[in-house]
Amino acid sequence: MNIVLLSGGSGKRLWPLSNNARSKQFLKLLTSEDEGKESMVQRVYRQIGQMDADVHVTVATSVAQVDSIRSQLGAEVDIVTEPERRDTYPAIMLAAAYLYDVKHCGLEEPVIVMPVDPYTEQGYFDTIRKMERAVRENVADIVLMGIDPTYPSEKYGYILPKREKKNGYAEVQKFIEKPDTSKAAELIAAGALWNGGVFAFRLGYLIGKMDAEPETSRFHMLMEQYHKLKKISFDYEVVEKAEHIAVVPFCGMWKDLGTWNTLAEEIGTDTGLTIRGEGTADTKIVNELNIPVVALGVKDMVIAASPDGILVSGKDASSFMKPYVEALEQRPMYEERRWGSYKVIDYITYSDERKSLTKHLEIHAGKKLSYQSHAKRDEIWTVVDGTGVLLLDGHTRNVKRGDVAYITAGMKHALCAVTDLHMIEVQIGPELDEEDIVRYAMEW
Amino acid sequence: MNIVLLSGGSGKRLWPLSNNARSKQFLKLLTSEDEGKESMVQRVYRQIGQMDADVHVTVATSVAQVDSIRSQLGAEVDIVTEPERRDTYPAIMLAAAYLYDVKHCGLEEPVIVMPVDPYTEQGYFDTIRKMERAVRENVADIVLMGIDPTYPSEKYGYILPKREKKNGYAEVQKFIEKPDTSKAAELIAAGALWNGGVFAFRLGYLIGKMDAEPETSRFHMLMEQYHKLKKISFDYEVVEKAEHIAVVPFCGMWKDLGTWNTLAEEIGTDTGLTIRGEGTADTKIVNELNIPVVALGVKDMVIAASPDGILVSGKDASSFMKPYVEALEQRPMYEERRWGSYKVIDYITYSDERKSLTKHLEIHAGKKLSYQSHAKRDEIWTVVDGTGVLLLDGHTRNVKRGDVAYITAGMKHALCAVTDLHMIEVQIGPELDEEDIVRYAMEW
Repeated sequence: MNIVLLSGGSGKRLWPLSNNARSKQFLKLLTSEDEGKESMVQRVYRQIGQMDADVHVTVATSVAQVDSIRSQLGAEVDIVTEPERRDTYPAIMLAAAYLYDVKHCGLEEPVIVMPVDPYTEQGYFDTIRKMERAVRENVADIVLMGIDPTYPSEKYGYILPKREKKNGYAEVQKFIEKPDTSKAAELIAAGALWNGGVFAFRLGYLIGKMDAEPETSRFHMLMEQYHKLKKISFDYEVVEKAEHIAVVPFCGMWKDLGTWNTLAEEIGTDTGLTIRGEGTADTKIVNELNIPVVALGVKDMVIAASPDGILVSGKDASSFMKPYVEALEQRPMYEERRWGSYKVIDYITYSDERKSLTKHLEIHAGKKLSYQSHAKRDEIWTVVDGTGVLLLDGHTRNVKRGDVAYITAGMKHALCAVTDLHMIEVQIGPELDEEDIVRYAMEW
Repeated sequence: MNIVLLSGGSGKRLWPLSNNARSKQFLKLLTSEDEGKESMVQRVYRQIGQMDADVHVTVATSVAQVDSIRSQLGAEVDIVTEPERRDTYPAIMLAAAYLYDVKHCGLEEPVIVMPVDPYTEQGYFDTIRKMERAVRENVADIVLMGIDPTYPSEKYGYILPKREKKNGYAEVQKFIEKPDTSKAAELIAAGALWNGGVFAFRLGYLIGKMDAEPETSRFHMLMEQYHKLKKISFDYEVVEKAEHIAVVPFCGMWKDLGTWNTLAEEIGTDTGLTIRGEGTADTKIVNELNIPVVALGVKDMVIAASPDGILVSGKDASSFMKPYVEALEQRPMYEERRWGSYKVIDYITYSDERKSLTKHLEIHAGKKLSYQSHAKRDEIWTVVDGTGVLLLDGHTRNVKRGDVAYITAGMKHALCAVTDLHMIEVQIGPELDEEDIVRYAMEW
């Protein structure tokens, strides 16, 4: 069986931990099996690995997330990279074409597409097995997972099944998108389920929908034409137009940890340097800074601190965060990359033409910063721990703790960490942003 | 008239803004006359300057505060520096000896000693004038200010005056130190006043108490013997032993802004990059970091963020902060110095023998970092803005934005800023602390 994990875009509803470069599914806040911390994507990937089935996983995502996914799931994970963000319909079609043209999957093979971030239990994956069997038995064009609703939520789509049930599935009677609370209550009374965004189908069902000349690769065609594809959800463009749709219910624990309010319930211990004093209760503290957070007399709140900012919020009020943080217009101050991570530790504008920005970079042993140059800034690198090999305009030299490199604007530079390497990078220039970069091909 | 401002020790009750190197009186949180921000010491100094009198101000403080006082009050302010902290009796005796031996004040001159941090109004200084007149009229050995109590507080000393009043003062009947609430209420009913820690006397009264050989300088003697002086308050050692004590009442606004709870009332607008959203009310936010603080649904709290840490506290709970922050054992991450200020922006321990620490230093035009060396660390300096002159092991060179200096352990170095100069300093070594410093004499 093929599972396609849809790793969606970044949002700011978990600011300051999530940002344009760091989506909520990568935050290591959940308690792992060994009582450490794991992210949503790590949890789902682990749960899939525990399924009683031979499963091949492909992650469908955008280029911005590739580094984070490889860093968290390992270098071997299969990734299909969308050239740009265009909603779930183009993303799933591209993944299907990838499975067919690149992975040479058969047209009869069942494919399950699911989001990368549901907080759920093993029964969810048993339900996926039931969906797979329903596809193999050819009960419908598309088989959906219906989540047993726990309250009349206004934020989900509802699936109303027909009354008649066979072998654990039912045909779908109709879809109702985000009803108001009273309508939602009526629907639940009538047996409706939440649409969990899990789709199962034979690979051939989607491949058959793609126009293509014989012998051409649908995958390469879609990659080239991607910017022209309709920005529309898979639900609207495919599911609701399908002739035969079935739904398999799932009655277990399922949560959408999309806001601090919901996430707070699942965060175990406080993260980072935190001190709870006098009268602090029902409060979660996540501190990614290396200075302490002291909470006194704090009740029913969330406190989150990262290089991007500090959130202090009542749990309920956190749902209203979006407009405030979207107005911030700030560059990401922390990013996980394929090679490690960086943190902006200082940033000052002296005048329009004179800025400085200082980063702490951590490069994992054996990893490389790509060969690159910047047009508008000088960089002064100081290695503060570890060893590596530096490449400057074609010349290599070994570097170690205490070594300094001066990289002027236009100079090509790369670095390979031999051991885990920490570096302070001071940038000076009139414009200091991640977009000022030219990359060069270079095999080490 | 001479006013001696006692600039007391640092505490952590206003953590993370106050620390061992930065006392509460230097925090620029109060609203100044031009709607900017001023500190407690700046406010008091300004109010003294507005007095209708010829006043000479001397600040009595410890060496740790000299840089902050000069930076906030100007280079001209007269400072008497205690060799070490030893309570108010030795501090005031030293200041008196300084006025006599160094400033050559006459023995008949009135001296008023007052704390540097009362939050009060102009009437307070009118009361000081009345105290001065009482000293000139020789009504007592010591004249105190009695603050009209606003509630039966347990944290102040009380002065019970005799019933008979003349010319705005009364003789003191007795002192009662920190009574319980019911005793305090009784005292207030009987006409007792709070002891505001303001003492007025003829200079000769204190000078007469100092044993000294003729012709010797009491000031130099006290400086040398300072470590042997009794650690005791001026109230216990002098005031309560005096034969004739008078008190002048003050009935205006007077506040001790010693905790976040009391300070919060007097902070005007939020400081720094702050965003108040949805349901945030009755809350003060002070943000000295260059990342935003977002507060949602926060009620009746104080949020304070500095390079030392982040406090989130209910206003009432903030009074209980001391034990929690005293347990922190953290080096100061921000200090104001005579030459400007520094901020620790990164600090990592890789192993017992391998640490790195990165600072952003701001050195004001014309100011100098003293000639110094460090035994246990290398420093890499990168000038990120401004110009200056660098002195390295006896050799000078001009430096500007973009220049780098590598200062190995043992190397003597100094810097003079020509224009305002910003620098990133990367420290590498087995021990990185402010105590690892040897200073050298050097005239530029």
